[in-house]
Order: sequence, then structure tokens, then C-alpha cells
Amino acid sequence: MNRIRQRILIIGGVAAGMKTACRLRRLDPDADIKVIDRTRNISYGACPLPYYIEGLYDDIYEVRKTPTGVLRDENFFARVKGFETLTRTEALQINRAEKTILVRHLDSGEETELGYDKLVMATGNEPIMPPLPGMNLAGVLPLKTMEQAQEIDRLALEGKNAVIIGAGLIGLEMAEALSTRDLNVTVIEMKDQVLATALDFNMAAMVHHELERNGVNLRLAEAVERIEGDNHVTAVVTSKGTYPADLVLVAVGVRPAVQLAKDAGIELGTTGAIAVNAYLQSSDPDIYAAGDCAECTDFLSHKKVYVPLGSTANKHGRVVANNIAGRYEQFPGILGSMAVKVFDLNVARTGMSSVDARLIGLDPESMVVSGFDFAHLYPGNKPIVLKLIAERSSRKILGAQVAGPGVVDKRADVIATAITLGCTIDQLAQLDLCYAPPFSNAMDVLHQAANAMRNKLDGIAESLSAVAVKQLLDNNEKFIFLDVRSPAEHAKQKIKGATLMPLGALRQKLTELPVDALIVPFCKMSLRGYEAQLILQQAGFRNVRYMEGGILGWPYALEG
Amino acid sequence: MNRIRQRILIIGGVAAGMKTACRLRRLDPDADIKVIDRTRNISYGACPLPYYIEGLYDDIYEVRKTPTGVLRDENFFARVKGFETLTRTEALQINRAEKTILVRHLDSGEETELGYDKLVMATGNEPIMPPLPGMNLAGVLPLKTMEQAQEIDRLALEGKNAVIIGAGLIGLEMAEALSTRDLNVTVIEMKDQVLATALDFNMAAMVHHELERNGVNLRLAEAVERIEGDNHVTAVVTSKGTYPADLVLVAVGVRPAVQLAKDAGIELGTTGAIAVNAYLQSSDPDIYAAGDCAECTDFLSHKKVYVPLGSTANKHGRVVANNIAGRYEQFPGILGSMAVKVFDLNVARTGMSSVDARLIGLDPESMVVSGFDFAHLYPGNKPIVLKLIAERSSRKILGAQVAGPGVVDKRADVIATAITLGCTIDQLAQLDLCYAPPFSNAMDVLHQAANAMRNKLDGIAESLSAVAVKQLLDNNEKFIFLDVRSPAEHAKQKIKGATLMPLGALRQKLTELPVDALIVPFCKMSLRGYEAQLILQQAGFRNVRYMEGGILGWPYALEG
Repeated sequence: MNRIRQRILIIGGVAAGMKTACRLRRLDPDADIKVIDRTRNISYGACPLPYYIEGLYDDIYEVRKTPTGVLRDENFFARVKGFETLTRTEALQINRAEKTILVRHLDSGEETELGYDKLVMATGNEPIMPPLPGMNLAGVLPLKTMEQAQEIDRLALEGKNAVIIGAGLIGLEMAEALSTRDLNVTVIEMKDQVLATALDFNMAAMVHHELERNGVNLRLAEAVERIEGDNHVTAVVTSKGTYPADLVLVAVGVRPAVQLAKDAGIELGTTGAIAVNAYLQSSDPDIYAAGDCAECTDFLSHKKVYVPLGSTANKHGRVVANNIAGRYEQFPGILGSMAVKVFDLNVARTGMSSVDARLIGLDPESMVVSGFDFAHLYPGNKPIVLKLIAERSSRKILGAQVAGPGVVDKRADVIATAITLGCTIDQLAQLDLCYAPPFSNAMDVLHQAANAMRNKLDGIAESLSAVAVKQLLDNNEKFIFLDVRSPAEHAKQKIKGATLMPLGALRQKLTELPVDALIVPFCKMSLRGYEAQLILQQAGFRNVRYMEGGILGWPYALEG
Repeated sequence: MNRIRQRILIIGGVAAGMKTACRLRRLDPDADIKVIDRTRNISYGACPLPYYIEGLYDDIYEVRKTPTGVLRDENFFARVKGFETLTRTEALQINRAEKTILVRHLDSGEETELGYDKLVMATGNEPIMPPLPGMNLAGVLPLKTMEQAQEIDRLALEGKNAVIIGAGLIGLEMAEALSTRDLNVTVIEMKDQVLATALDFNMAAMVHHELERNGVNLRLAEAVERIEGDNHVTAVVTSKGTYPADLVLVAVGVRPAVQLAKDAGIELGTTGAIAVNAYLQSSDPDIYAAGDCAECTDFLSHKKVYVPLGSTANKHGRVVANNIAGRYEQFPGILGSMAVKVFDLNVARTGMSSVDARLIGLDPESMVVSGFDFAHLYPGNKPIVLKLIAERSSRKILGAQVAGPGVVDKRADVIATAITLGCTIDQLAQLDLCYAPPFSNAMDVLHQAANAMRNKLDGIAESLSAVAVKQLLDNNEKFIFLDVRSPAEHAKQKIKGATLMPLGALRQKLTELPVDALIVPFCKMSLRGYEAQLILQQAGFRNVRYMEGGILGWPYALEG
């Protein structure tokens, strides 16, 4: 039997493309595998680029090296991985009928045709550059490539003022990086919060405080109108003001790089990315798409989404290689899991928000709890705030958002696992998680969140979110806002408008409170707030709701 | 309608007992709830006691305080939690027919009877003191109570040499604590490894190295014969030697404190702990058992097990309270999840080992992978080694053990969640976990472990464990042990008996290797080891198996 030597052509030599090629070579020693890439700097990690600018490592080529320090260049892929990589080679056109692509070798200008049996689109993303006046000035650029990182590094060295347009993942990481470089940093965001697609307002507000605490000038709900300068940028003008700038980072988002696919008549999805089935095949069954150019399916809603992340790109690459090699595998979809560090605040999220859930007709409930990441007696423990979202009827977990100086990614990863496998809040409450003082509490914040949610759904506890309480305060509604912490805690930090009545004295002071008023007790984390609610309810008070998350989860200003 | 005021009596005022009482009061404002405890120091956390001795906090009463610093004494439970606690009150006898217990008030000597409708046994555990000569000498004690912690602290201040008998959780935590106090520490363990019920040998070996690296004299497979001294201990004598000792910590394990239950004819299980059904009811339906005196069911094997942990005790308390209050709930069982920090090594485990799995007739496969806890470019990343166990036929995950200086508890908690919900290795490989350089890699060690296991089960990769390779070496078997790292890495650290042949040069050097010999390639983490295997197989070599886990997972001595 003659073995057929499959010709596999992969366009794009970063995460998804290289993963596809490497896995495929391991599965099929005979395949003719070629990767082509327009650039010279293939197989680089874009995610660590902000930390290059922050100065956490010195050699930009580190982002192209293996953990043991080997440069992942054409030679590496040929010798170690066993396939050919053509760099500085641009794919100009796909001829699907002939199964060829026309490429231009950028250094020689020469054009040739390459044949394929299977083609993999791994063309990645391209930063969105809004069509504003001044966008082409020197000093205005996105951060996607190593060259751009080096350029920003140079500008940071010379400049004094940086403006970041957009408060997504890259915008926030760069706010930290450029502040660390001693620039005055302004972040301008059109929406009224950072990370608008990922976080609810109360969680985003923690990021707002962290940015402001670190001297970042955060301008929310403000639209950039133009960028000023002669040759080099000098300022950014919004509807509300003018901000001097020696450097403007454009970080409003990315779009899938799909022109080549579109020109070839490959179907694009509603998100604008290449439409794929569960096997990551495009509308042409001999053409696959993987990574940032491909559309994803939300695991829970089954809706098409565009969430370009390196973690997904790597998984995509493996799935595509398996399918090309005949080891059929489906990609199950994503939860939009992500993490970001903003100065000393860690943020992670997965699954749906309450808003997402309502959009697809579910009836969600949410619960915010605060606590410490590990035992309060073990040095270094830090607070975290967790928002859990579950469906009322099925009690299944839909999502979580976690933020705080403490360890958040562990909790989000447990929830991502739980959602994937259909976990209810009742199962979450009983999970046998690892406990020892340096790692967690006997009851982890995850257990507390599950139990608090159970109490809420079972009608045992009634609560209000911090956002709802803030509205009551802002609207001057009549209610009693009861701080049940100790006088010492109250002296240190308090919420304006709250009355101190320590929990230990509450049973004795019941007569001081009106029976029919709305009473909203809270404490540091709201365990005592919940206790106060029960004491009041058991004493006949009808309208008591503790405030979820307590002081630690209060996303607004505190008084000293 | 007259409400019946249920009388609930709880024996034992630590984790499980207090949790039961607190939750029950919240569910039932009318119940007559009493907790009795023989000691004065109720509601203390035993788990942080080693860190008191280590000097990480100064006031031993911290272990009885809430995170906000309030002492959890009788007054606290009365005023804040709303129930009565009788300390220094010993339960002498349970009269099940009359539903009373006879108690002695230890301060007055007075004996009284207390009636109950429901009784909760939360009597905890008692340290096992082996019947050896000298066990009653001064300076020989276990660590369970605050008083014992204070006594050990005093002995540590005066003494020079400490001997710890038993290398379980407390023994290991105390080895760190006493070493930090500048004592010469000897740990004597009968078995040939530490944490014998929790870890497989290769993972335990990492703990052995860490203890030795920190100057602990670890004596494995050595049985204590007697303890010597006049009034105060002076030495511990084993079958193999005599170890001077000013302080002997007896940490060979604990047993459930069940004398009272046994005397009352309450059924004990095969483990010696109180037998309970899924509702945590004992053989007497009006008597519940919770925490360290109660038997648990292993979630996977459905076997009865005794794993006393504060995390389980807290969950037990809530379940018992729910059931007494008529909100019926089952306790689903445990996975034996645990974590421990030993100097700079973190260890966590959950679920079954391969041995456990075979004992109940399953056909397990295991896979060891090494990697870094987060991106190699982000400062502070550290290695971890993960052993994953899954069932071959169903591909369901059975267990995991994780150890290393890096973050291990996150991975173990994800696996605990995965096991509980019936996750396969294929699902694990596709989990959408949170990714950003400060938190993880695009492909986490969990994904790598899942994929490596899939390759193994699917016949794509063939491998040997480090333990198996060591046996080949020890038996002087003929095989080629191939270090495919770079010369620079090899110069720093190597395994004796291995031949250097860098991966990049392998394709050119194939003729130097005999086609029919067993070849075992490895590298730092064994990604390159696996690549080498594929290169060799594709070149016609028949008998190639890469070594799982690489140098990072090699649990034996390395050469400099």
C-alpha cells in the first residue's frame, strides 16, 4: 500500500498555527507540513509583551524562546519539530478550486503557488484602529507585535505622558506597565467601566479604585474625538478634555484577520470571524480555522462569540491537527475565562454574568461574598471578593467573577471546571477542596458563596447587592443602613450614611430600631451582617436585608 | 399552633459542634441549643497551631478569634450566635432510652442530667500514643491542644534536639516549625516514605529531598523501640540508632474519640469511628455524628474511610444542622483532598492513587508531567510536578498528586472538582481555565497532563515512570538512557547513567544508536523527551519510551 503524503499548509506561524503543525507532525511522520508567515518573528508570545515594557525581562526575544531558552525560529522547527516554516512569505490568494495558494516572498518579491490537501487558517487578529483624526501620527500605536513593544519601550523612555485608549485586558496591563515606567498614565474608556464585556460594574469598580490608587487618570464614559500633534503626537482630545501625550496606546480591541478567507469566499460568522463547525472546519471542508481568526461557541449559551485568547488558540491547534490526522475531535466551546493582574489587584472571571444569562432567557441569581484567600493566621493572606451567578430553577452555576489582592484564579478555575461539568451550587458547597492554613480556609470563599446562594434561593437569607444599596443611598431612600462591626473597625474605615451598632450589642438594642423600616445590616465580609439580619428577623423585624460582600465588597469610596 | 421547642444537645465545642450549633440557630430561632465541652478553650483552630510554634503569630488565643479579632468564648456564642455553651463540662454517659446525658461540671464536681430531643456527637479525635516505654516522660507529647502547643513552644525555647515520631501532616508541618526554631530535628517514620496514605512514592520523594535540604534528619523505615530519660526525655531509641531529644512530638496519627458513643451502644464503623448514614445519623436516629469522630465515605470507592480534617468537620456541621431542622441534606463523601506546605515545597492531593484504584478493581493509568505554575517570563514562576490518575476504560479522572515550589493547590482543587463531577481526561484537556502570564501558561500543567494521558491511552506516546527507570538503572538493565537537553543544561544538573544527545542534533545522530535497544529519552520536563521518542520511532526504532516528568520529576538524587 502506498501511503498518501498529505500536504498541509498552515497560514500563520504563532500559537494556533504552530501548535497545529507540531501536533500534526507527531501524529503523522509522513505529512508534508508547511507553515507560512508574513513576518520574520514567528512563534512569539504576545501576552507577555506588556511585561517587557514594564521591565520584568530585558530581552524581547525571550517571548520567542522555550522555557529552557531555545529560540523558536525556522531552524528550531525544522530540526526539532520536523517541518518547514517559510517566513516573510505572504499569502495573497487562495484558489479553493485548484487547492493552491498564491504567496509572495517578501524579501525577493517573487510570487509562487503552493498546493495543499488541507489548509489551516491561523491568521490571528489585527488591532482595531478607530478612524479618528491623528491616528497616523508618530507615537500612536497598538501593541501586538514585538516591534511595537520595542517602539513603546523607546517612547516610554523618552516620554512623560502616556494615554491609553481602551480599558480592556491590554489597556489595563499597559496602564500598570507604563506607570511602573514613571509615566503619567491616562486611560480613556468610552464605557462607564473597565472590562465591560467581562465584569459586572461592582467588580469593575474594584479595578477603578486600584487604577486610581496607583495614580492612573481613569476617564470613563469619555470618547476620544481626535489625536493632535504635528508629526509626533502631542495630545488626545475627548468630548470632555485634552490630555497631553508623548505616547498613545490604541487598545480598543482586536478583530479577526479574515481578509484572505473572505476573498476566497470562505464563510464568516456573525462575529466577523471565520465560521467553523465543532471540528473547526470552515465552510470549505478542506480548510480549517484556528485561534484568533476563528469564531468560538459559548459553551453555555451556544451563541457564537469572538474571544481571542492564547489559551484557546493552543487548544484549537491540537483539535485541528487531530482532525486532519483522522483522530476526530470536537472543540467544546469556551466560557470566556480570563485573568488579569492590575497593579496589586488580581481579577478573574468565567462563564456568564447575570445580564448574559437573562439575554438567553435564563433566570439567574447572583451572590457576592468576601473573604480571605487563606487562613487569617497565616501571614500573607489577602482579601478577595467573589460574585457567583447561578440559575434559579436548576441551581446550576453559570458564572463567577473574582477580584482582590488575594488569590483569585484558583477560585475562577474551580468554577470554570464546575460550569463545564454542570455543577449545582449544592454540589459546590460540598466540594472536597484542599485545606491547610497556607492555602485556604476550612470553608473556602467558594463554599461560602455556594452556601450564601443556597440560603438566598431557599429563602433563608435576604440580601441586597452593594450596587442596590448605593442606589438607595443616592436616591435618599428611607432605610437604616446598619454597620454591625466593632467600634475599632468602624473607626478605621466606614461607609458614609451607615449607623454603627456592633453585632454583640444588637440583641440588647432592638428597641432602638423601628420594626417596619427597611434595615440593611453589613460588616466587613457580611457574615455578621447576615447574623444581624437573622437576629432582627427573629425579633420580629419584617424588612431586613443584609448587604452582600460587606465593606470588602463595597465598590465605592470609603471614609477613613 | 404551639411550636415545639426542640432540645438540641451537642457534645464537643470545636469545628463540627460549633458549626452545627450556629447553623441550627440560624435555621431555628426557637430551638434550645446547648453545646457542652470538657475543656475551657472551645472553638479553637488546631490546624494553625504548628505556625504558632514556628513563630508566625504571637498570641495563641488567635486560634480562637474570628478574622476580625473577636474571641469566640461562651459570651460570644451567647450574645452573637444566640446559644448556650457549657465549658469544663464533661459528658459521662448517654442514656438513650431516656434521651438524657449525665454530665459532670469539672470545676464544681457536680453532676447533672441534660435532656435532648436530638444529640450531636462532635467529640473529635484523640492523638494515638503508641504503648512504648518512656511515652509518659516529660517532654513527650502530641500536638492537639493550645496547651500542648504552648508546652512545645517552651520546650523548643530551651531544647536543642527534637524528635518527631511520624511523618504525616502534623509531623511534617512541625518538622518545618521546629527547624525554623533552630532545633536539630529528626523525623522517624516506620514506613519507607512520608505521607504514606496520601502520596505515591515518587511524589513523597520530593518531600524527602526538601526535608533533607533543610537539615532535617529523616529516618524512614525505622521503628521507635523506646523513649529514654529520667524524668524528662533524653533520647529516642529505634531499631537502628539512638537520637538525643529534649522534645519528642508524637505524631503517628489520631483516632476518633468514641468511648462515650461506644458505651452508649452507638454503632462504630469498620474504621473505628461512629458509623453514620448519608444524613450523618448514627445507628440511633436521634443521635448524629459530625467531624473527626464520624466515619466518612470515600466519594469514588464508596468505602468507609477515616480522614479527620477541619474542612470536612465544617461541612458536616452544616449538614447535621440542616437535617435536624428538617431541611434534609446528604453528605456526599470525601476525596481525601489535602494540602501541606513543607518548607518551600507545596504538596496537594485528591482522589485515588493507582494502588487505591486497583484495590477496588479498577484499571488505572497514571501520568507524571512537570511544568511551571505560570509563564516562564513572569518573575516568580516555579516548577510543579503533577501525577494524574485516570481509569483506562471510562477515561474518568480518579485522582491527582501535585508537588513543587510552585502553586499546587489550584491544580488539585480543579481535579477535586473534576472528579466529583465525573470529568474525563478528554474534558480536562479542553477546560477553559483562566490564562494570563502572572497566573498560568496558555496550556496549563493540567492540560498537559490530560493530553499526555490521552497520548498514552491512545497509543500515541509510550513512556516509563521515573520509578520504573530507576529500577532499570538499579538492576543494571541494558538500555540507553538519553538526556536530550542542551549541553548547558546538562552541565548544571544531570542524572547518573544518562547519555547526552541534544534534541536538535538527534535527527543527525540516529546512526549512533542501536535500532533494537530500549531507549529512554528525557529532558527537563519531558516535552522534548516525548519529541525524541517520536523522532526515534519515526526513524524505525522499535523500543522507545520517554521518561515521564523529566529531570523536574526525578525523585532521586541528581549530579551537579
